[in-house]
Amino acid sequence: SRRYNIALLPGDGIGPEVIAVAKDVLNFAASLEGIGFDYKEMPMGGAALDLTGVPLPDETLLAAKDSDAILFGAIGGYKWDDNPKHLKPETGLLQLRKGLGVFANLRPAIVFPQLVEASTLKREVAEGVDLMVVRELTGGIYFGQPRGFKTGENGEEIGFNTEVYAAQEIDRVARVAFNNARKRQGRVCSVDKANVLEASILWRKRVTAIAAEYPDIELSHMYVDNAAMQLIREPKQFDTILTNNIFGDILSDAASMITGSIGMLPSASLRESGPGLFEPIHGSAPDIAGQDKANPLATVLSAAMLLKYGLGEENAAKRIEAAVLDTLDKGFRTGDIYSAGCKRVGCKEMGEELLKSI
Amino acid sequence: SRRYNIALLPGDGIGPEVIAVAKDVLNFAASLEGIGFDYKEMPMGGAALDLTGVPLPDETLLAAKDSDAILFGAIGGYKWDDNPKHLKPETGLLQLRKGLGVFANLRPAIVFPQLVEASTLKREVAEGVDLMVVRELTGGIYFGQPRGFKTGENGEEIGFNTEVYAAQEIDRVARVAFNNARKRQGRVCSVDKANVLEASILWRKRVTAIAAEYPDIELSHMYVDNAAMQLIREPKQFDTILTNNIFGDILSDAASMITGSIGMLPSASLRESGPGLFEPIHGSAPDIAGQDKANPLATVLSAAMLLKYGLGEENAAKRIEAAVLDTLDKGFRTGDIYSAGCKRVGCKEMGEELLKSI
Ligand SMILES: CC(C)[C@H](C(=O)O)[C@@H](O)C(=O)O
Ligand SMILES: CC(C)[C@H](C(=O)O)[C@@H](O)C(=O)O
Repeated sequence: SRRYNIALLPGDGIGPEVIAVAKDVLNFAASLEGIGFDYKEMPMGGAALDLTGVPLPDETLLAAKDSDAILFGAIGGYKWDDNPKHLKPETGLLQLRKGLGVFANLRPAIVFPQLVEASTLKREVAEGVDLMVVRELTGGIYFGQPRGFKTGENGEEIGFNTEVYAAQEIDRVARVAFNNARKRQGRVCSVDKANVLEASILWRKRVTAIAAEYPDIELSHMYVDNAAMQLIREPKQFDTILTNNIFGDILSDAASMITGSIGMLPSASLRESGPGLFEPIHGSAPDIAGQDKANPLATVLSAAMLLKYGLGEENAAKRIEAAVLDTLDKGFRTGDIYSAGCKRVGCKEMGEELLKSI
Repeated sequence: SRRYNIALLPGDGIGPEVIAVAKDVLNFAASLEGIGFDYKEMPMGGAALDLTGVPLPDETLLAAKDSDAILFGAIGGYKWDDNPKHLKPETGLLQLRKGLGVFANLRPAIVFPQLVEASTLKREVAEGVDLMVVRELTGGIYFGQPRGFKTGENGEEIGFNTEVYAAQEIDRVARVAFNNARKRQGRVCSVDKANVLEASILWRKRVTAIAAEYPDIELSHMYVDNAAMQLIREPKQFDTILTNNIFGDILSDAASMITGSIGMLPSASLRESGPGLFEPIHGSAPDIAGQDKANPLATVLSAAMLLKYGLGEENAAKRIEAAVLDTLDKGFRTGDIYSAGCKRVGCKEMGEELLKSI
């Protein structure tokens, strides 16, 4: 029997609720494959700020680095909204990503047949969408130096950031996208703004160069403004979208909304070796926190990604994915994905139904 | 009778076709209000590259600066796609915007009742959308210094750009947005990424400060990733969206696609005083250029914006807008907005129908 160390970072808002469900589901599905876990639960985000004064305590980062994989809930809340930048919950998340070096963020956007009506797109446009955004996660304008504030000649305030990519940063995330596309439909659309930005010109050049290592993959390029349009016009045209940190932030949220069920979408953040970070793409939803209303499925599916991409335990991952589909087929829905004729359940009850389905 | 000087920049691809129609419509509508025009037609984009070797000849910029308003078609085409950056048609457009100092780009996205089915969004989501993106156009990462390429310590190539905003750049475009919102529903949503970027922190701070001058306007703030989602989830929540150059590029294209008819959407680029630049938001569509298939309505509506925002000739502008609605009511459609039961027309015939409707 195999044992893994999991760092559990529930975070804020609905984070603890969805993590609790995901942990139960993960345990049960894995146990059927002879897998066991040792968990280390650590504070992060607003919870860590309240406890320790910083959004990512050293102990949390250390525990994460020492683990085999990290399951993370969500961070943020009204309470910390006006904090200075270095004391914002979000800063803790950025420090965690950077500290772990997880440069490749995989964000699948799948329209579940059972939920196609939840999309605001017409049925024929939404049906069958199954795309994956591969977002560069530890570079670009999120981390580029120099950054900050200065005073102009006339005394006015100036704010600035640097969008910067080095060839190797592009190369390694491009390889992740190409490798992933191999397991999918074999098509990569690289999104940039090479008609304006030098950082994008290099991006396009390197992605094109790396593509030569993958003759079986079809590579196309698209400007980011057009990509935002095409996601709305005909999302089915996409298989794998490869893009930088800030464009990936925007496009993956757009892609997720196309599925109509942001409460369903997981993500994985990976590096070549070392533990991966697995989290739902939704936020901490402070408005419904503690009310047992949250949809745990995005976090549950993140646990499935943890098994598949983090530990290479595909069979256990498939058990979780199948249980999610089965539970949807049976008609169980949290409020965010409810439609007439279904059975409305809370976060905990959804968890119990998942356990029954495994 | 009033006379104005108009610089006419047809550009590339379908540019000349749609400009020809817009010019006829502009002339006729204006003549009924006692307005006359002197046109100066100048090369720009790929056409200028072929003719003079640069995408924005000095003479073109001078003629534009000397005019009362500029009507521009579109630029770009396969032929120049592999040109180095300073010889790309797009670079000419950026130089024109910067040279004119038109820092405020107004991009309305309206779902025309006649075309609601053209949207890929469900009828109930698309119906009634009427929003305006106010995009900062001469600053930010499009023009920020330093920018370029350098070599890293390990010899690898690095590409970089600077996202930078000074207080006054933010203040002046914010005022345009607030003033515009006054003529609309009085709500401004400022979009930034203040949880990550210093340039956005300053953006939010200045927009909030300027809002104090407009107590009648309701200001809200939204992160750009969420805005991309909300445009798909519930576009009707927006009245005026105020944002920076790069986010505005992405969000205005997304907003236009929500209307399902990018061939319908005009834009105006303005400064405090001096001539404004008016152009359709669509591109040069080289695949259908010269085939009389282009939809001229975006350029025609840009001519209406030229009258309204550029020359203060509201009555003539209203004549054009009314003619567009009337022509749509009569069922005339170019291919891009065609639906069963309508009358399919080419670019020229659409122009003739518009003249009949005026
Ligand atoms: C919370 C925020 C810093 C974060 C980001 O911008 O990366 C979030 O939007 C995301 O996409 O995970
Ligand atoms: C052609 C390109 C440089 C331009 C931009 O990015 O501003 C275009 O996309 C636009 O939105 O007008």
